[in-house]
Amino acid sequence: MKYNFPVIKTTHPKEKPDPDTLRFGQIFTDHMFMMEYSPEQGWHNGRIQPYAPLQLDPAAAVFHYAQEMFEGLKAYKSKDGRVLLFRPDMNARRTTNTNERMCIPHIDEELFVEAIKAVVGVDREWIPSKKGTSLYVRPFIIADEPFLGVRPADHFLFMIILSPVGPYYEGGLAPTKIYVENEFVRATPGGTGAAKIGGNYAASLKSQEKAHESGYEQVLWLDGVERKYVEEIGTSNAFFKIGDEVVTAPLTGTILPGITRDSVINLLKQWGMKVSERRMTIDEVFEAGKSGKLVEMFATGTAAVISPVGELSWKGEKVTINNGEIGELSQKLYDELYGLQIGEVEDKLGWTVEV
Amino acid sequence: MKYNFPVIKTTHPKEKPDPDTLRFGQIFTDHMFMMEYSPEQGWHNGRIQPYAPLQLDPAAAVFHYAQEMFEGLKAYKSKDGRVLLFRPDMNARRTTNTNERMCIPHIDEELFVEAIKAVVGVDREWIPSKKGTSLYVRPFIIADEPFLGVRPADHFLFMIILSPVGPYYEGGLAPTKIYVENEFVRATPGGTGAAKIGGNYAASLKSQEKAHESGYEQVLWLDGVERKYVEEIGTSNAFFKIGDEVVTAPLTGTILPGITRDSVINLLKQWGMKVSERRMTIDEVFEAGKSGKLVEMFATGTAAVISPVGELSWKGEKVTINNGEIGELSQKLYDELYGLQIGEVEDKLGWTVEV
Ligand SMILES: Cc1ncc(COP(=O)(O)O)c(C=O)c1O
Ligand SMILES: Cc1ncc(COP(=O)(O)O)c(C=O)c1O
Repeated sequence: MKYNFPVIKTTHPKEKPDPDTLRFGQIFTDHMFMMEYSPEQGWHNGRIQPYAPLQLDPAAAVFHYAQEMFEGLKAYKSKDGRVLLFRPDMNARRTTNTNERMCIPHIDEELFVEAIKAVVGVDREWIPSKKGTSLYVRPFIIADEPFLGVRPADHFLFMIILSPVGPYYEGGLAPTKIYVENEFVRATPGGTGAAKIGGNYAASLKSQEKAHESGYEQVLWLDGVERKYVEEIGTSNAFFKIGDEVVTAPLTGTILPGITRDSVINLLKQWGMKVSERRMTIDEVFEAGKSGKLVEMFATGTAAVISPVGELSWKGEKVTINNGEIGELSQKLYDELYGLQIGEVEDKLGWTVEV
Repeated sequence: MKYNFPVIKTTHPKEKPDPDTLRFGQIFTDHMFMMEYSPEQGWHNGRIQPYAPLQLDPAAAVFHYAQEMFEGLKAYKSKDGRVLLFRPDMNARRTTNTNERMCIPHIDEELFVEAIKAVVGVDREWIPSKKGTSLYVRPFIIADEPFLGVRPADHFLFMIILSPVGPYYEGGLAPTKIYVENEFVRATPGGTGAAKIGGNYAASLKSQEKAHESGYEQVLWLDGVERKYVEEIGTSNAFFKIGDEVVTAPLTGTILPGITRDSVINLLKQWGMKVSERRMTIDEVFEAGKSGKLVEMFATGTAAVISPVGELSWKGEKVTINNGEIGELSQKLYDELYGLQIGEVEDKLGWTVEV
């Protein structure tokens, strides 16, 4: 390892949770990674220390101007006791791009990955091993300089916290009901849709609330200009299998470049399938739905890996996809990806990284 | 007063700054207002306490999903020793609208104003009285519930902090150079442009940085869909005097409904002038600029009140406005508004509120 981070161990280890009752993002481990940025020293003082509250001035820029970013990935414990990360270099790369858009100083990508490995290593006993469980890893950066005024801050904190999590869907791969959002917009060209920043998620809460009230699990976002091209589903990327073609929105700056998305595209190509990264209208989706050509639809993301969609609602119209059941391709992709992540499928592409 | 907030006074009062060297948003007073929200108790425990760091869990939602909002207004000390706020009910109303968009629980508007009065009252000795100085008042709300997952939080903090500030432009009302932004977008219909939330400002940093690098003070935003209608200037609203008509963008959800904007529109109408809240293309602005019909342009906002624009640059083309000098109307509006705010112009509309 190029980097060597000092470790201050907790003197009050917490009790580990019951793996059977784990939910998402509510319990945190004993330690966290922390590093600071100042203009004089750059990023410095990377260390692992006990998980504890932050002390921040009420004028810290993050509270007012949301200069902040985050990442998300999972660490799994394999049957033979190895601790595996899935493509953490992609999170490091996405962080570089997000930071560039947010005027946050660049973090060396190797350091980013080494820091994750180091803190996961210290708390490796916290990784649950029950099927579907994992340790969710949350790197994030906040501007902590205390001042009021709109300009990039010059003091930041980079942290990594860890949370043991249960399976995203308790009953397994259950198809979801999705609402096509017509009123609210998530992202627009020239905006921040491709960056992983707090503001995008804050802006999405209202739409999600509306979807929940109408009995839907998530929203399908349309593009912000013409309001007709399909973009993403909630916090995941969207795939549509129409006849033999698997379609997903292209990376033109308004959607998040998902790591699961990239992995799915890679696998499909490897399997000799036709994958198109192209703009597709919601009309095309609904027509394919009605004519029976929309054979499968699924969302991809770190939290649920593959999440099949069973129903789509748009302006009062509904289409049911694959009789509301999990499609063959969704299941195959889930098995392959999840198998790779937990170390049970042979990793020919070098996607997994051992801690 | 309907509300009565307990006051815990500081035992370590800070030294007050030299009024001659005051800048913007870097020094904070001795006290702050703080109130908490929980689902069981609603907003509760409003109090004034010593200004001090916040203790927050690293998983607090504000750090990850930017569920946060803020407001800004100023308290002035009049020559006869009164402490005046300018239309604080408008900040309360805007907070209601922002909170609604951000899934933040509603705060009673009367409480909002009373809380400002209470904390400004406690720190009234901090209000500088030199011409151009004031006490900047920053109410803000952050989601402090510790959890990872995209949903509205159910625990929040509402705070008010105070900062003695100097005149926005040190040399007085100096006309600024503005860059028309073609690449980045601030807001789009269905987005959060009309809400005063951190995410909007984080998204704007990159554009501002680019403008500064090219020698411009601020950017003029164009609409996010057609990229041709003028919207706002940095953190202020934009006005254009074209012949006899004063034009400003309408409130259609993509610009912040500025309180200075509203006050300017009111004054202009009172003075019998023609004011139009209408969409106007940047082409129209440049044509008017070249033909000499664009006689004045100015930005309006709490920080600088009225800020005249002397030069506009768009795709390599430049127009100079009013020979780069302050226009008559800009000066008249500034004198009237600033006069009202410091209690030297008679307040016939009941805009000022005494603390
Ligand atoms: C908006 C958005 N799109 C897509 C994704 C999926 O990205 P990934 O596969 O890297 O988790 C996420 C989640 O991380 C997201 O927040
Ligand atoms: C984006 C934006 N537009 C306009 C304004 C002007 O609003 P006000 O006149 O209420 O200060 C502000 C500043 O508060 C702002 O941040």
